[in-house]
Amino acid sequence: MLSTMQDVPLTVTRILRHGSTVHGTSQVITWTGEGAPQRRSYREIGERAAQLAHALRDDLGVADDEPVATFMWNNAEHVEAYYAAPCMGAVLHTLNLRLPADQLTWIVNHAADRVIIVNGSLLGLLAPLLPQMTSVEHVVVSGPGDRSLLEGARAQVHEYEDLLAGKPTVYDWPELDERAAAAMCYTSGTTGDPKGVVYSHRSIYLHSMQVNMAQSMGLTDADTSLVVVPQFHVNAWGLPHATLMTGVNMLMPDRFLQPAPLAEMIETERPTHAAAVPTIWQGLLAELTAKPRDVSSLGQVTIGGSACPPSLMEAFDRLGMRVCHAWGMTETSPLGTVARPPAHAIGTEEEFGYRLTQGRFPASVEARLVGPGGDHLPWDGESAGELEVRGPWIAGAYYGGAGGEVLRPEDKFSEDGWLKTGDVGVISPDGFLTLTDRAKDVIKSGGEWISSVELENALMSHPDVAEAAVVAVPDEKWGERPLATVVLKENATADYQALRAFLAASVAKWQLPERWAVIPAVPKTSVGKFDKKVLRRQYAAGELDVTQL
Amino acid sequence: MLSTMQDVPLTVTRILRHGSTVHGTSQVITWTGEGAPQRRSYREIGERAAQLAHALRDDLGVADDEPVATFMWNNAEHVEAYYAAPCMGAVLHTLNLRLPADQLTWIVNHAADRVIIVNGSLLGLLAPLLPQMTSVEHVVVSGPGDRSLLEGARAQVHEYEDLLAGKPTVYDWPELDERAAAAMCYTSGTTGDPKGVVYSHRSIYLHSMQVNMAQSMGLTDADTSLVVVPQFHVNAWGLPHATLMTGVNMLMPDRFLQPAPLAEMIETERPTHAAAVPTIWQGLLAELTAKPRDVSSLGQVTIGGSACPPSLMEAFDRLGMRVCHAWGMTETSPLGTVARPPAHAIGTEEEFGYRLTQGRFPASVEARLVGPGGDHLPWDGESAGELEVRGPWIAGAYYGGAGGEVLRPEDKFSEDGWLKTGDVGVISPDGFLTLTDRAKDVIKSGGEWISSVELENALMSHPDVAEAAVVAVPDEKWGERPLATVVLKENATADYQALRAFLAASVAKWQLPERWAVIPAVPKTSVGKFDKKVLRRQYAAGELDVTQL
Repeated sequence: MLSTMQDVPLTVTRILRHGSTVHGTSQVITWTGEGAPQRRSYREIGERAAQLAHALRDDLGVADDEPVATFMWNNAEHVEAYYAAPCMGAVLHTLNLRLPADQLTWIVNHAADRVIIVNGSLLGLLAPLLPQMTSVEHVVVSGPGDRSLLEGARAQVHEYEDLLAGKPTVYDWPELDERAAAAMCYTSGTTGDPKGVVYSHRSIYLHSMQVNMAQSMGLTDADTSLVVVPQFHVNAWGLPHATLMTGVNMLMPDRFLQPAPLAEMIETERPTHAAAVPTIWQGLLAELTAKPRDVSSLGQVTIGGSACPPSLMEAFDRLGMRVCHAWGMTETSPLGTVARPPAHAIGTEEEFGYRLTQGRFPASVEARLVGPGGDHLPWDGESAGELEVRGPWIAGAYYGGAGGEVLRPEDKFSEDGWLKTGDVGVISPDGFLTLTDRAKDVIKSGGEWISSVELENALMSHPDVAEAAVVAVPDEKWGERPLATVVLKENATADYQALRAFLAASVAKWQLPERWAVIPAVPKTSVGKFDKKVLRRQYAAGELDVTQL
Repeated sequence: MLSTMQDVPLTVTRILRHGSTVHGTSQVITWTGEGAPQRRSYREIGERAAQLAHALRDDLGVADDEPVATFMWNNAEHVEAYYAAPCMGAVLHTLNLRLPADQLTWIVNHAADRVIIVNGSLLGLLAPLLPQMTSVEHVVVSGPGDRSLLEGARAQVHEYEDLLAGKPTVYDWPELDERAAAAMCYTSGTTGDPKGVVYSHRSIYLHSMQVNMAQSMGLTDADTSLVVVPQFHVNAWGLPHATLMTGVNMLMPDRFLQPAPLAEMIETERPTHAAAVPTIWQGLLAELTAKPRDVSSLGQVTIGGSACPPSLMEAFDRLGMRVCHAWGMTETSPLGTVARPPAHAIGTEEEFGYRLTQGRFPASVEARLVGPGGDHLPWDGESAGELEVRGPWIAGAYYGGAGGEVLRPEDKFSEDGWLKTGDVGVISPDGFLTLTDRAKDVIKSGGEWISSVELENALMSHPDVAEAAVVAVPDEKWGERPLATVVLKENATADYQALRAFLAASVAKWQLPERWAVIPAVPKTSVGKFDKKVLRRQYAAGELDVTQL
C-alpha cells in the first residue's frame, strides 16, 4: 500500500521562509558594546540572506555544494550566512576560532574553502594564517576591525555590506533534497587530524523540531534566547535554526563574552533562556556576586559542553535561573540528552539527582551501552559501558575531503553504523544517562571496567591528597590495571597502604590499584583537563617512582 | 558534498520502542464506568502490542502492507492496535463508527479489510453490517459486550485476550521505510464516495514531534491528556503517537463520552490537557454548571473540528481551562494550525481575537490562498481565498483501493501537488488563519467572492430573523449571485427592503442579495450543519417563493 502523503523535503530553506514571514517581526539582537544593540527582524534577515546568496553566487562564484566558511562571533551577519549558504545549495562551514593555528589551516585546506566570511574584530587571528590557507580566494569582512591587517593578502578582500548593497532581497531558492549537505563543522581533534561532520538539511530540520519540543528547550516566540554558545561550535547547539522555526528572538553577544557585558545584556534585554558551557556561567556567577543585577527574566539556562558542578547549579537556582543539563557532541548535532527530571521526581529529593545526570534520551536518539567484551549492557543504572548512539541527526561517518570518500574509522563507528561516543557511563531504566569516564581513560581489567574518575574522586576526598590521576597501565595477568598517581598536600607524606585502605571504603576490592606514585603535579592540557597521555608515557618510559603494593 | 549523517528512518516503531522503555511507567488509563479505571503502563502496552502482532501474523495471517481495521472506542486495546499493526509492517485502518451503514460497508470493502478488531460494546452496530462486508474473514472482539450478536456470522470470531494469551511479549519489529504506509482513515465523504487517506510512518513521526513542540500542545511526561477526540477520527489528532514519544499519560473515556462521566474522570484523574470538538465541551459546561466539580487540573484544552464559540471559550477561561483553538482535517493528519497568540498580543486586547482565529501555521505546514481567478493572494488579513496547504504530513492523493492507483482529483489537489482544503479564509501577515466559508458555499460573483457566512451572520443579528442561509444561485450577468433565505421570528413579517438596508451597514453594496425568500426552517444535515445543497435544489426546482428586489 502506498502512503498518500505529500513528499515534501525537510530543509533549512523551509525554516528560513517560515521564520522570515510568519515570524518576520522576531529579532536578532546583537550586542555592540556601545550604545544600543543592533536589532534586525527575521524579515530583514531573510532579505539580507537573499542578498548574501546573490553576492556569493554572482560576485564570488560559489557553486552548488561548495563550502562557505565563516570565522565569526555570534551576530546577525553570522545568522545571515547560516541561511544564505545552505538555502542556495552551498554548505555553511563554521570555523572554530579557538583552535590552534595549525589545526585551523589544516581544516580550511581539507575543506578546500575558497570563501571565508570573517568579522573585522577577528582579522588579527585570521590574517596571519591566510598565507597557509592555500585554497582561500575571497575574504569577506563584516563589522568593525582593522582592514589593514589584510594588506598584501593573496586573496581578494570584500566588504560584507558592499557585497550586499543593491542585491535583490529575494532569491529563487532551489528545492533541495533533504539529505543534501547543509553545514559542516570539524571536531577539535585531540587525537589525530580534525574530523569533519557534515549536517544535512534533514538533520538540522529534525534537530530544530526536537530543540523546540517541550521536553527539550521548549522555546516559542515568547522567548528570547541568549546564545552564548558560539555559532562556530556545533551550530550554537542548533539555536539559530530552532529560533526561526518558532519565532524565538536571539540575543547575540558578538565578541562581548566577558561576565560584565553578559550580565548587562541579561539585565537590559531580559532574555528568558540562555545556553553556554559551565565556565561562562562560573564567570557570570562571580560577576553577579560582586555586582548584583536583575537577572530574573532568565527562567531557563541550558548548560552543556561539560558537566555542570552541583554548586553552580544550586547557586543559579537561588538566583531563579533554572539550570537544565544537556549532553551532546559535534557528531550529535549536538542534542543527545536533556536532563528534565521525570514527573514523579519533581519536588522530591530525587529531583536534583536527575538534574545532575547528563539527561534523558529523546525518541529520535537511540542509545546502547557496549561493555568491555562487546556485549550490550542493561539499562539498570549500574552497568557501565561505552555509549553508542543512533539517530537521524547523529553522524555515521566523517567528511573525506573534496572528492574523497567518507571516512568510517572503526574506533568511531560500529559495524552496524552506530556512533561510538567514546564516553563511558550508565543508563537508568527510565533512560537517563550518567557519564563517568572517557572510554580511553577506563581501565580494562580482566574483562571488567574500572572507572578512573571514580578512583580519582575517591582519592581526592582524602585529606592528604591535593590531586590524583588514575591511568591504565599494561598488566600481564589482567590486561590492564590502574596506576594511581597522587599530588600530596603540603606537609603530607605518602602512605600508600593507608590510601588504599581509604579507597576500599568506596570501591570494590578488585578495583584497588596496586601501583602507586607521588607526582609533583598532574599534567594538564591547554584547556585544563588532566593529560593522561603524558602520565602513561612517563610510566612506560620508567620516569615515575612507582611503588607496587 | 555528501552529508555524513546516519540515515535512520522515522517510524512508528521508534516511537513504540522509546515509549515502552524510556517512558515505560507512563500509563494509558481507560475509564470502565464502574470502580477503578483500567491502568496499563507503556511497558505493558509495548508487550501486548508485540503479542497482538504475533497473533495477527501467526493466527490471522496478516501480511505486510495489509490493513488491520479497528471499530473501537478510545482505550488501551485500541492503542495496542495503533502500534501492533504499523510496527509489524501492516496498516492500521480506523473505522469511523459514526458513519452511516452504507458508507461503512463501502469503506471496508474498498480497503478490502480482512480483519476487524471491535469493542464488544459496538457489536450492536457492527454485526448487522457484516454480511455486506464481504472481505471480512476475522472479527476480534475486545471488552464487554454481547457476543451472541455475532452468532451465524460468516467471519471467524476471536476473543482479543485469547489471541494475546501466551504469545511472546517481544516481536522482532522489521526496519521499515519511513515512507511506508502506517495507518489509514477515510474522510466522511459529504459529497461522493468516502476517500482514503494513508498516513506514512514519516508523516506520523513528524506530526508527533510537532504536537509536542511548545508552540503546539507542548506536552511532556508531566502531563496527562484526556483524549476525547476519537481514535477512529484522524488518529485522535495524533495524541496516541505524540504521548508515547514523550511519556504523556493518556486518559481514555472508552464509551463514556457523556458529560457526567467526563466531568467525573476530570475530577478524579486530574488530566492536565484535553482534546475534543466544541459540542463535547458545550455538554461538559452545562454539566459543570449544574453540578460543579474540581476541574482545576485541566490547564489546556485543545478544541478543533469546528470553530469554538467565543462564549464557550470565555466560560472555560473562567473555569481556569485555557482553550486553544486548532484547525485541521483528515487530509492534514490533522494538525494544520494552532491558535497560540503571538507574544506581543498576550495580555492585550488583541489576545482574545488571536485565540478565536483557526491558528498559526507551524514551519512544516506551508499555506497559500488562491483567489477566484486562480491567483495567489497576499497575507494581509483581508484578501479571502481558498486555502491550499503543503507539507510532510499533508495528503497529496487519496487511496485508490487494493491494487489501484492513487487518486488525485483536480478539485482536491493543485497541479503542483498542494492540497485544496475547500476552506475559504484570510491569513494575517503573521501567519494566523481565519476561515470564513467552505469554498462550495462561497458566491462567485463577477470574479469576486462573496462570503455566505458573513451575510448570514449579519442577517441573523437582525431582530426579526431567527435563522438565515445564503446560497449561490446562477446569474446570467455575474455568474453567481447570493440568494438570501430567512426564517422569521414569530410575529415578524418579511420586509426585504428593510433587511437589505440593514445588511448594507456591514457589507459592501455589490455583495447585497437581490433575491430573497422566507422559509419555514433551514434544512440541516445529520450533524446539524446547514444543508445548502437542499436550498440550491429547491431554488432550481422553483420550490421557493423568491422575491427579486
